[in-house]
Amino acid sequence: MHKTLITATALTGLFASPLLAETIGVSIPAATHGWAGALNYHAERTIERLEAANPDLDFVLTTTSGPSQQVSDIEDMVATRNIDALVVLPFESEPLTAPIQRVADGGVWVTVVDRGLAQEGIEDLYVAGDNDSFGRTAGTYFAENLDDGAKVVVMRGIASEVDNERVAGFEAALEGSGIEVLAMDHGNWNRDTAFGLMQDYLSRFPEIDAVWAADDDMAVGALAAIEQAGRTGEMIVVGGAGMKEMVARIRDNDTTVPVDVTYPPAMISTAIEMTALGVSGAAPVSGEFIIASELITADNAEDFYFEDSPY
Amino acid sequence: MHKTLITATALTGLFASPLLAETIGVSIPAATHGWAGALNYHAERTIERLEAANPDLDFVLTTTSGPSQQVSDIEDMVATRNIDALVVLPFESEPLTAPIQRVADGGVWVTVVDRGLAQEGIEDLYVAGDNDSFGRTAGTYFAENLDDGAKVVVMRGIASEVDNERVAGFEAALEGSGIEVLAMDHGNWNRDTAFGLMQDYLSRFPEIDAVWAADDDMAVGALAAIEQAGRTGEMIVVGGAGMKEMVARIRDNDTTVPVDVTYPPAMISTAIEMTALGVSGAAPVSGEFIIASELITADNAEDFYFEDSPY
Repeated sequence: MHKTLITATALTGLFASPLLAETIGVSIPAATHGWAGALNYHAERTIERLEAANPDLDFVLTTTSGPSQQVSDIEDMVATRNIDALVVLPFESEPLTAPIQRVADGGVWVTVVDRGLAQEGIEDLYVAGDNDSFGRTAGTYFAENLDDGAKVVVMRGIASEVDNERVAGFEAALEGSGIEVLAMDHGNWNRDTAFGLMQDYLSRFPEIDAVWAADDDMAVGALAAIEQAGRTGEMIVVGGAGMKEMVARIRDNDTTVPVDVTYPPAMISTAIEMTALGVSGAAPVSGEFIIASELITADNAEDFYFEDSPY
Repeated sequence: MHKTLITATALTGLFASPLLAETIGVSIPAATHGWAGALNYHAERTIERLEAANPDLDFVLTTTSGPSQQVSDIEDMVATRNIDALVVLPFESEPLTAPIQRVADGGVWVTVVDRGLAQEGIEDLYVAGDNDSFGRTAGTYFAENLDDGAKVVVMRGIASEVDNERVAGFEAALEGSGIEVLAMDHGNWNRDTAFGLMQDYLSRFPEIDAVWAADDDMAVGALAAIEQAGRTGEMIVVGGAGMKEMVARIRDNDTTVPVDVTYPPAMISTAIEMTALGVSGAAPVSGEFIIASELITADNAEDFYFEDSPY
């Protein structure tokens, strides 16, 4: 009975209209690294916008440094703030599944962001990035912009389903393009690992035309290794996520970084905005929204550059 | 280059800020029948809300009685109103595909609603109902609320992929429930056909515990046949879509119609709201949003009853 909360509030409203306000709890990982930092920035920015635009909407935002803290944050929101809806990016799937199930069973609307729970059908709305599209967008850019016979090296993330989906999308887009993938190893989404891996690639291959680093952190590591080796200008580097420094390079027409691929931390804004639409009755929003990756180019970089974001 | 429009407007804004307003075109089928009538109602209501809340958003709404008129409506919107985004529920897929492709190629954001185009990858955002969820929600209600051995008759829609998906979801939900499906024939989403089909079921089966009419129009036909046969009270009828009369029966605790399943015409509101979020830069909204069906019960019927809607 997903919408019980709305009915309950509407009924309350008959007797005491000041209580009509809806409260949305937002629980996300703390800003321990770049992408999460941007997640926090966008969550705060969206909550600010929505509170200003809608006097009837209240928000509780908590940031968490681990799964058990996140569970107690969420339980607190329910117990002390009587939230009508929860927007949550689970720190980990397993330990959050049962607690979020209990919240949903209690009649609270639940929106899960990006990291799915260990069991299907608990949340009312699921908002997530599109890993196939993430890889496919980079691969399509290569297929359309590199010459037949061009040589590419790839830095994959940590071995995982997410990484497999991204690489499958990338490879599907390259099919028939005549582009040669020289090597494809795991840089583990880590800047330092990527730096070492790129040094290895540079020593092994005298000709590299392009690097696909399946995450901007790895792209930064790769760029540093290329520069140290004095081979800047020989190859382009395409990362992914939408890190500020990368977007700035694109905007400033850096020839080494012509484009980037989004896996937007601003998806938390999408999730919060959609939840607000649902809670206020403006539109039906139960279901699954998979956010496609977009190609950031010099033409649109301004739209993806957030001056005040840490990432 | 999906977001070119936004960049272009941002640049224009540097020189002439009064031109900053974004214009969203909305093109939908005319209100020739119930569901489309509600579609029009929700589109108008949402446009009104968004125009009042956002002085920088303009809308052009056109309703169409056929595909060729829809093509010229859309071309007009681009030529004379210079729209930044288009929200379109295609009257038919094939004849709209190339014209909408041209609009997208021209840098206009495109949101396609419910009826997909004949070619993938044209639209920036796709918003649609969930046919599996539509059937599964009805089937789950039966599985959870009917006794082992209960006897059910089913009225399918017009033979189509949509109908197949709905029935597959329904059957999957019944698996292992011990519920017996006596018959499953096509009522073609038509009230009169459903009336005749229900007469046939009633004459063939002395015991029927529940009817699944996979559309509210068919449910209305079935209810009339049941009443005419004097067998009201013997069985429940579960339809689908969210027709006003059905929601009113649920709200008023009609024991024959305890629940309904949404396939919400208000999805046009979702599509317009999300497009507005994207155009205004509030959140990333490229991708695919599949709106799950919800169960309408006496507890939440008020949320699904729109006094001024024709449907």
